[in-house]
Amino acid sequence: MFLKRWLIGNPLKTTQASHERLSKTIALAIFSSNAISSVAYGTEEILLVLILAGTAALSWSIPVSFAILFLVLVLTISYRQIIYEYPEGGGAYIVAKTNLGERPALVAAAALMIDYVLTVAVSIAAGVAAITSAIPDLFAYRESLGLLAIVFIVIMNLRGVRESGRFFAIPTYFSLVTLGLLVIIGTINTFFTSPPSLVSYLEPPGKAMESLTLFLILRSFAAGCSTVTGMEVISNGVKSFRHPESKNAAITMVWMSTILASLFMGISWMAYNYHILPKSDETVVSQLAHLTFGTSPLYYAVQIGTMILLILAANSAFAGFPHLASNLARDGFMPHQMATFGDRLVFSNGIIVLGLFAGLLLVTFEGNTHALIPLYAIGVFISFTLSQAGMVKRWLTKKGAHWRKKLVVNGIGAFTTGIASLIIASTKFLQGAWIVFLLITILIVMFQGIRSHYRAVTEQIALDRRGARPPLPQRNIVLIPIGGVNRAVIRAVDFARSRPGDIRAVFVDTDPEESAKVKILWAQWGCGINLIVLPSPYRSVLGSLIDYIEEILEKDRDTWVTVVIPEILPARWWQNILHNQRALMLKAALLFKERVVLTDVPFHLTR
Amino acid sequence: MFLKRWLIGNPLKTTQASHERLSKTIALAIFSSNAISSVAYGTEEILLVLILAGTAALSWSIPVSFAILFLVLVLTISYRQIIYEYPEGGGAYIVAKTNLGERPALVAAAALMIDYVLTVAVSIAAGVAAITSAIPDLFAYRESLGLLAIVFIVIMNLRGVRESGRFFAIPTYFSLVTLGLLVIIGTINTFFTSPPSLVSYLEPPGKAMESLTLFLILRSFAAGCSTVTGMEVISNGVKSFRHPESKNAAITMVWMSTILASLFMGISWMAYNYHILPKSDETVVSQLAHLTFGTSPLYYAVQIGTMILLILAANSAFAGFPHLASNLARDGFMPHQMATFGDRLVFSNGIIVLGLFAGLLLVTFEGNTHALIPLYAIGVFISFTLSQAGMVKRWLTKKGAHWRKKLVVNGIGAFTTGIASLIIASTKFLQGAWIVFLLITILIVMFQGIRSHYRAVTEQIALDRRGARPPLPQRNIVLIPIGGVNRAVIRAVDFARSRPGDIRAVFVDTDPEESAKVKILWAQWGCGINLIVLPSPYRSVLGSLIDYIEEILEKDRDTWVTVVIPEILPARWWQNILHNQRALMLKAALLFKERVVLTDVPFHLTR
Repeated sequence: MFLKRWLIGNPLKTTQASHERLSKTIALAIFSSNAISSVAYGTEEILLVLILAGTAALSWSIPVSFAILFLVLVLTISYRQIIYEYPEGGGAYIVAKTNLGERPALVAAAALMIDYVLTVAVSIAAGVAAITSAIPDLFAYRESLGLLAIVFIVIMNLRGVRESGRFFAIPTYFSLVTLGLLVIIGTINTFFTSPPSLVSYLEPPGKAMESLTLFLILRSFAAGCSTVTGMEVISNGVKSFRHPESKNAAITMVWMSTILASLFMGISWMAYNYHILPKSDETVVSQLAHLTFGTSPLYYAVQIGTMILLILAANSAFAGFPHLASNLARDGFMPHQMATFGDRLVFSNGIIVLGLFAGLLLVTFEGNTHALIPLYAIGVFISFTLSQAGMVKRWLTKKGAHWRKKLVVNGIGAFTTGIASLIIASTKFLQGAWIVFLLITILIVMFQGIRSHYRAVTEQIALDRRGARPPLPQRNIVLIPIGGVNRAVIRAVDFARSRPGDIRAVFVDTDPEESAKVKILWAQWGCGINLIVLPSPYRSVLGSLIDYIEEILEKDRDTWVTVVIPEILPARWWQNILHNQRALMLKAALLFKERVVLTDVPFHLTR
Repeated sequence: MFLKRWLIGNPLKTTQASHERLSKTIALAIFSSNAISSVAYGTEEILLVLILAGTAALSWSIPVSFAILFLVLVLTISYRQIIYEYPEGGGAYIVAKTNLGERPALVAAAALMIDYVLTVAVSIAAGVAAITSAIPDLFAYRESLGLLAIVFIVIMNLRGVRESGRFFAIPTYFSLVTLGLLVIIGTINTFFTSPPSLVSYLEPPGKAMESLTLFLILRSFAAGCSTVTGMEVISNGVKSFRHPESKNAAITMVWMSTILASLFMGISWMAYNYHILPKSDETVVSQLAHLTFGTSPLYYAVQIGTMILLILAANSAFAGFPHLASNLARDGFMPHQMATFGDRLVFSNGIIVLGLFAGLLLVTFEGNTHALIPLYAIGVFISFTLSQAGMVKRWLTKKGAHWRKKLVVNGIGAFTTGIASLIIASTKFLQGAWIVFLLITILIVMFQGIRSHYRAVTEQIALDRRGARPPLPQRNIVLIPIGGVNRAVIRAVDFARSRPGDIRAVFVDTDPEESAKVKILWAQWGCGINLIVLPSPYRSVLGSLIDYIEEILEKDRDTWVTVVIPEILPARWWQNILHNQRALMLKAALLFKERVVLTDVPFHLTR
């Protein structure tokens, strides 16, 4: 309890909720790291596909980058419309639900959930790998380091949104400044200096393994699509912004897209101009930083900034996942607990669940990012497409001011992301995208199972419309299981006696001598209450008691049994080990029996 | 549950207890492996000390072995007297308790307990080491193999004494036959063949590191004393023998001692005659078996037999430890659970506790027997000495037939084992015996702490001698915490209403809309019972409820609170995750509050 307070702080009052809203500067830090961190690998993934057709094909990286830039532009404009239309937070789930219906909404939700977990696992693994590349001695501890990072982020998020925003804002801006410097200085260099000798970078020369087909170019585009993952995060979290929420969120979205686009295009341009080849032991960004800054401190600043950004990208998912889970929970598709605000006005359960699954994934794949990356973008693009399609449907149905212009914007969005989804799914299906489709199906079945359970419960506990009360049990037998005659038992007996009825004390005979003693004491202290002595051939006190209770219940379907347990509670917790855990086991065994009411009469020891 | 049945069998009736007695043949197998397995290392330990004074000193092994033989003889005769005098089982604890008083009894008990755990850990580690020496590929798995062996022995013992006896009898006798063959054939060989060339066995020649002093000879005697560990096991388990228990136990004791003495003296004699030197990579027994049987199957039979015997020695502790623990529990020095017979008429808890501690020791010391062996014999000899001293006191007090003769026997026993204890303690103190003394102290403090707790409990729950009943609470307020109005709540309300009194439904307001709805429904269904709506600034339903209850309790020290919890129980266990765990948390929080009676009114869902 004390530890909890120390780690996540004192509870906040519900009335403090509105103060927990984010300024644009802090919101940018929280919500943008996911999208912007992709520049660390976006260009590299494009090059990795193109190189298959030889070094000459690398010049295609520029048109492909422009295609990605177009995607960023389309997404920014169409998501601005969503942000204004859904000021309460317009995640793909909400947009699809309100416009397309339940099924597409669940598909979007499942796809997003998977992607949030993957974002955390992939980003943490990549960030830790970056650290361990810099300090090879830490390589043996990468799994533990990754888990530690997750635990750290979980705790920060449990402290509440504003505090985690403040905590993460400084390093995020540090990363953005270092990457910004790299792109600005590097790009200026490309115009004023001649590109470095190709020779040192073209050994071994890239031999063509495939010919440069349209399909290969599409594959490189699909690979580059990982750059735009995370762009939807702001639209999920509009509610976290300060008033006016939508306007602030839309402005932040434009900032984010501008930064993302500039960094991405700058890196692609530099990579093309410097004739950079993807290497297995050095990232493209690291190569660029080396060329621009040599081995000066600025080089290390860029590397550290990249690492930080990747780890903070994981943090961004901790803002999105709990919101989505709470939306699902409110609709009955997830356990109700996911919709409950914790002590610090955050959806604590969602944060913890995300942390657990991401940690599990990290351990299962032993921190191997390469195995996870093919699964990564598909979920996001499915939800992009469903959001945009939902908006198209919305304008067609709702119309309103300028609906035609808005329809065109979201129509282009839906078309573009739909095509991208098809490209990604078809080029990545066998590499792992099938797992995502399988998981989406499983999650949808789970969502629907949970809701049908909640519906069944609601029906079963619903009150009678005509006001008829359910019948009361006709007969109630009160049993007091005793292990001897003492003050605790006397208290339970007196408590039971205060209501007239069929009261019986029950003693299980495991030792004839002991039984005789109990009978004599009962005659003196039992107040005329019947003492039932049960035989116990197998020495199981619990078993004999339960057999007896079951016998009573079976004899008459209208009889209820109230078990009054005289419970001796030690003064200190560790003393519990010195007492037979019979009361606890009895309660556990009887809780799931129908027609049995349990009553605990405590007797607290003082020493 | 099914797994439990499959592993340890169906429960046995108490009346089947007498059938679970052991025949002498099976008792010998169970109780003797501990003592007899010591021949695997007894001679070797003597030689390991003597070699410090050079190879010439090895001839002292014969007189030292005779000293050990004398110890075996003394122990056999004096323990026979204990077996007859204590047919209920005369462990050192019982003997010391009835004759010397509580303190010495607790010392003996603590010493024995430590020794049982050490026996299991050391024997299993040594047995596994023997296997891994034969099959080096298994070396990497030695810890797992050791734990597996412990789990296996635990399960066998939980099945019950007779079955584990049967299970272990065949391999025990196999081991005894192989070792017997080795000793018989090897000893005969020493008379009819000239000893093998010394040269091959004296490289490198043993250089003297110390001079042959009396102290060194005493040290070699102390080292050899490990041979007699385990001789007390039969006296602890007299009750497990068939009628007449004492006579059968005494006969088995003589058999055991004869086998032990013959094997030990045979091995010492052969080692002396064949000029065997202790080697780090081959045991003395293995060297003897090589010389006698070459590399024939009989050599491997001896090696396998030795391993089996070492592992079964561990099993022997599983017969002794639970008996001792149950004796202590009956006197209130250990938790009561240790005195309860399990399903299969064995002290299941004692078996499990021994298994856990031995496993822990094995893991802590990574299966390194050498670190544990110095701790090993001291506990046994402390208990030997206390037993014998107790018997001396007994004859002096009780007298009876032939008491003078018996006094002399146990007097010699006490004197001999006392001297041996002093020798062991003084020569091994710094090597680890101090840990044993420390642990004995800690255990005694624990024993006394447990008993004083039980005594305090007995006093606190004791009935008034004059027959006065403790006063009943003057006022009882019934609270029904509700989260809404439904059939489960209605049932709880009707249950509470059946006893007149101050009844209040309590609802925690976390959402004003919801509260308004509940108030309207309550007006219709509440039967006039007061509805208390509690504010909840921190959104904690549990916290607000508990604050309210504490307020009531503090206002009036004579008021009790009965909390009637309407609990919705799902049809399937996994559905529990879908319901707020509030009922469970409320019960956990209230259980340890004074003056609070908990009543669970269940509402079972059917789907």
